[in-house]
Amino acid sequence: MAYRIPKYLQIKQDILDAIKTGVLQPGDKVDSESTLKKKYSVSAITVRKAFNDLINDGILVGVQGAGTFVAKKQMIRGLTSISFSDELLQQGYAIDTAIISIEEVVNPHVAEKLGIGQDDPLICVKRVRLANEEPLAFHISYIDAKKLSLEEAQDVIALKSFYKALEKRGIIPKWANENYSVKEVNDPVVSNLMKIKKGGATFYVKRTAFDERNQIVEYSETYFNKELYSVDVNIKFAT
Amino acid sequence: MAYRIPKYLQIKQDILDAIKTGVLQPGDKVDSESTLKKKYSVSAITVRKAFNDLINDGILVGVQGAGTFVAKKQMIRGLTSISFSDELLQQGYAIDTAIISIEEVVNPHVAEKLGIGQDDPLICVKRVRLANEEPLAFHISYIDAKKLSLEEAQDVIALKSFYKALEKRGIIPKWANENYSVKEVNDPVVSNLMKIKKGGATFYVKRTAFDERNQIVEYSETYFNKELYSVDVNIKFAT
Repeated sequence: MAYRIPKYLQIKQDILDAIKTGVLQPGDKVDSESTLKKKYSVSAITVRKAFNDLINDGILVGVQGAGTFVAKKQMIRGLTSISFSDELLQQGYAIDTAIISIEEVVNPHVAEKLGIGQDDPLICVKRVRLANEEPLAFHISYIDAKKLSLEEAQDVIALKSFYKALEKRGIIPKWANENYSVKEVNDPVVSNLMKIKKGGATFYVKRTAFDERNQIVEYSETYFNKELYSVDVNIKFAT
Repeated sequence: MAYRIPKYLQIKQDILDAIKTGVLQPGDKVDSESTLKKKYSVSAITVRKAFNDLINDGILVGVQGAGTFVAKKQMIRGLTSISFSDELLQQGYAIDTAIISIEEVVNPHVAEKLGIGQDDPLICVKRVRLANEEPLAFHISYIDAKKLSLEEAQDVIALKSFYKALEKRGIIPKWANENYSVKEVNDPVVSNLMKIKKGGATFYVKRTAFDERNQIVEYSETYFNKELYSVDVNIKFAT
C-alpha cells in the first residue's frame, strides 16, 4: 500500500497552494465545508480540522454565519516614524485621509493628559485614515489651543496631515508614549466611520507625544481596524 | 439666580467621587439609568450623556444587556522584563499559573518560526496565568525539543515558570520581537480556559525570543484578557 498523507493535511496544503499561487486572494471566501466534504469524500470533522489549523495559524478567518475567508494581510507598524502615512506608503498601500472635524473644545480629562488647566481650550482634530479605500483608523488628536489655534489647525485640510500642520508651526514631536489595548466601539458615529458593527473590537492606541524639550505637544486616541493593523516591537530584557 | 452646573456633569462628578472614595470598586455595577433618572430628576438622555463621557474616558464599561460597570484597572506591561510574573507581583497582584499541558508536537508553521526543520519535534507548553484568581492570559510556548527535552520540560510544573525551566538548562532569552494585535477566540478550549464568550476579542501577542548569540530560543502565542491587559511603550521618532 502506498503511503498516503492524511486527508485534512491534503485539504490544508491545497488551500495554502491556492493562496501562494494567487488563486485565492486576501478577503476571498474559501469553499464551504459541504463543498469540500464532497470534493475530498471526507467527513465534516476532517474539513473542520483543516479549517481550524489554518484559522489558528492566522491564514484563514472564520466569520460567524458568513463562511471562511482568506485573512487580509495585516499592515505592520514598526516603531520608528511619527508619520504613519509614510510607513503605509512604504508598504505599498494607497492611502487617503478624510478630515471629519476641527473644533475648539474643553475636556478636563484630556487637559490633564496635556498638563494644562482643565478649562483651557483645546483643538480637537478628528480624521479617518483610508488604506486601499478601506477605513483603517479613526484618529482623535488634541493639542493646547495656545500651541495651535483653531485658525492654524485649518492647515490640516490642505496638508492632509495633522503632523505636517504642526511642523508648519515649528512643532516637531520627537518621541511618544503609546499604550496599546483592545477597545469595543459603542459610539455609533465611530462604528459608522470605521464600517464596523456596534460593539465590535478595535486595536486602540493612546499616544502622548513630546518635543525635544520633553514638553507634551499632543494627546491622541486612535481606533484601528483589527483586521488590518498590528504593532511590532523589539524588546530587550533587563537582567 | 445661583450658578448651577449642568446635571450631567453633576452625575459624572458623583460617580467619580464614589470611585475615588472606594464606595464604587472596579467591577462594581453602577446605578441603572432609570434609578439615576429618578434620583437626579433628569431625562434618560442626560444620564446617558454622563455615562457616555465616562465610558469614553475608560472609567466605566457598558455591557450589552447587563448594565454599566466600573472599569477594572488594567495592568500595564512595560517592556523591560522577560518575566511577566515579576511585573505583576510589583504591581501588587496575587498571581498563579496553571499548567494545562506539556507535549511533544510537530508543527511545520511553528517550526518555520523557530528556524528548524518542519518535521522536527517541538516541546509545547500551555498554561493559564491567573491574577487575583481571574484568568489573565493563556500562553502557548514552543521550543526546539533538542534544546529542551520533554523530560526536562516537566520542570515547568515544580517551578511554575517556563522561563525558570529554561534558565535551569542555561537558556536565557535576552531580547524578543513581539507583535500585538486583536484576535477573536473561536476555539472553545481557549474561551473556556479564559472564561470569555466564544468569538470574544483578546489582546494577542506573538513573541519570538532570542538568546545573546541572537539564536531563536522560543516562539509563543498569548491570549490576554482585554479588560485586564495593555502594553505601554516609549518610541523615538526617526527624523
